[in-house]
Amino acid sequence: MKLGKSGKAPVITVIGCGMMGSAITWPAAENGCRIRLVGSPLDGAIIAHAKKTGEHLTLKRPFPEGGKNYEYYTVDEFDRAVPGTDLFICGVSSFGLDWFIGEMIPRLPDGIPVLSITKGMLHTGGGAMISYPEKMEETAAKLGKKIDFCAVGGPCTSYELADRDPSCVTFCGRKPELLKAIRALFESDYYFVSLSTDVRGVECAVALKNAYALGISLAIGMSYRREGREFEHYNSQAALFGQAVKEMRRLLAFCEGGEDNITLGAGDLYVTVFGGRTRKLGILLGEGKSFEEAKKILAGVTLESTVIAARTAEAVCALEEAGRADPSDFPMLHHIGRLLAGETGIDVPWTAFESESF
Amino acid sequence: MKLGKSGKAPVITVIGCGMMGSAITWPAAENGCRIRLVGSPLDGAIIAHAKKTGEHLTLKRPFPEGGKNYEYYTVDEFDRAVPGTDLFICGVSSFGLDWFIGEMIPRLPDGIPVLSITKGMLHTGGGAMISYPEKMEETAAKLGKKIDFCAVGGPCTSYELADRDPSCVTFCGRKPELLKAIRALFESDYYFVSLSTDVRGVECAVALKNAYALGISLAIGMSYRREGREFEHYNSQAALFGQAVKEMRRLLAFCEGGEDNITLGAGDLYVTVFGGRTRKLGILLGEGKSFEEAKKILAGVTLESTVIAARTAEAVCALEEAGRADPSDFPMLHHIGRLLAGETGIDVPWTAFESESF
Repeated sequence: MKLGKSGKAPVITVIGCGMMGSAITWPAAENGCRIRLVGSPLDGAIIAHAKKTGEHLTLKRPFPEGGKNYEYYTVDEFDRAVPGTDLFICGVSSFGLDWFIGEMIPRLPDGIPVLSITKGMLHTGGGAMISYPEKMEETAAKLGKKIDFCAVGGPCTSYELADRDPSCVTFCGRKPELLKAIRALFESDYYFVSLSTDVRGVECAVALKNAYALGISLAIGMSYRREGREFEHYNSQAALFGQAVKEMRRLLAFCEGGEDNITLGAGDLYVTVFGGRTRKLGILLGEGKSFEEAKKILAGVTLESTVIAARTAEAVCALEEAGRADPSDFPMLHHIGRLLAGETGIDVPWTAFESESF
Repeated sequence: MKLGKSGKAPVITVIGCGMMGSAITWPAAENGCRIRLVGSPLDGAIIAHAKKTGEHLTLKRPFPEGGKNYEYYTVDEFDRAVPGTDLFICGVSSFGLDWFIGEMIPRLPDGIPVLSITKGMLHTGGGAMISYPEKMEETAAKLGKKIDFCAVGGPCTSYELADRDPSCVTFCGRKPELLKAIRALFESDYYFVSLSTDVRGVECAVALKNAYALGISLAIGMSYRREGREFEHYNSQAALFGQAVKEMRRLLAFCEGGEDNITLGAGDLYVTVFGGRTRKLGILLGEGKSFEEAKKILAGVTLESTVIAARTAEAVCALEEAGRADPSDFPMLHHIGRLLAGETGIDVPWTAFESESF
């Protein structure tokens, strides 16, 4: 199986061209694909800037090869971007998911696959969680549409991808042959792609890391506060990292994702601790600021991690209420949940992390 | 069960008082234990400096509470340090293991437990690996001695422990009641102790991270070289981190250690990437220097990680030769092994990290 008409460059149309939705096109454009970037209603400035300068406004980098394979569209021009498209990319963040599902899936043609970069899980009640691509599948099926949804997991920050730092990711979806065809568009000497049909497992592992990366960053803020300067200690970060991996393995089991996916979760956790926004929030909370204060300081910043964290905590609470999960199994998640609910002056529940394996 | 005579402070005697052998006494001394530090033949300067100044020479920090609970002994004075001891600590590094086993175990009295901070595995031929505490048990049994050996695993660097950064570790050993009694001496508001009877699993997980932390640090050096300045990228580090976790899980299975121990391994991996010596070596190799050149630059530094890495690579090669392991399952370990064998100019085998899970 191959995407694209024979003798013609494959065409990739990105819906929502924030940092990651755009950065993922770097290897594809350099592989010779034609890229159509369609801004979401929030991306007007990015599209205008790209048209004028050939640069991505928020990535702060020029498009590859002088942007020669790129075209730019506003959301109103979407219908012009559709003809000839071989692959759509859903490039919105969690906050754009409702818009993509409600406004854009109805406008997608049958038969053209979608690769989603949006990472997250939805709590569907009673502790049941499903991944974003599953939600998209469900929506399309209800509309009677025939669309295959695939998604990207694994540790990869957008600006480093655009800097061509070697990155290993995983594409997940239902159909091995389709996944291989999509990989062929992106695989390069700095973008390495594993494939998996365990959609739930891949998405669950990489979504959970958002919440837990926030938790690990708390230790940085605690260290700053104790030292009275920006000095990091790593024992406490590593203790939280280990506890995060422990709880993520338990959550993977609840989500019925394969346990091998912890490999993805751990790598993604690592890169997210060094990422920008989640880390900044964790540090502020670790320094003792309330969630309200921290949000004020980080005004204007998209805090996707808090949405994921709050949702996961809510799902786990539901599981606990139903007697299906043991509250003592998720002390770190509950601590993060309490901080996001506005509590201050609470210590990391270190002793709750202790275990006895006899 | 309780260690120590009733009404008297428990006495902990440390054999080999380098950085970790000494740092682990911080919480115990603050809990009121009496500490006797016995230098190995290599620790003469540390003992002399401690007697004179009340400071630890290489930790560069004063002993807790003005050293009021501390006594210092040279190795020749060992027999004076024995009477009244409730717990011995084996505080040597991998390089001191032969000395501890050959010279010191024969001098240990029956009935007094040993807690070892030395992390590592031994290849006993044909791909079989055993942990250091198992080797100690074996040696003591051959001498007809009745000694229980326990060990410390988990992410904990010595200087951060001495700075009282919250640390979560695991004590492993055969007897739950003894483990609990030892924990009671150390547990504090910055030192949190889990317990496990899976000695092989705990030790294997934390030993392997030495090799793999070296591998992750390669990405830092590669980034420095590409950028022409000390600038870190994290996608490539995270890709190597994920691959490390993947290979460590496979090695844990070969060592017959419980898979839950990957939690410890991942946390320990995290802290080791930020530790001093292993990271420095990885950066130099990642920048393209040969192992010989890197060793010259790091002259005088103890490179325990290289011993563990070389041994693990050797054991895996033996497993592969015996047809028990698939070489394609350990591409990262083999890459590290080749660098330590002196090869240069070889790229990280990124495509070998790709997997297909259908």
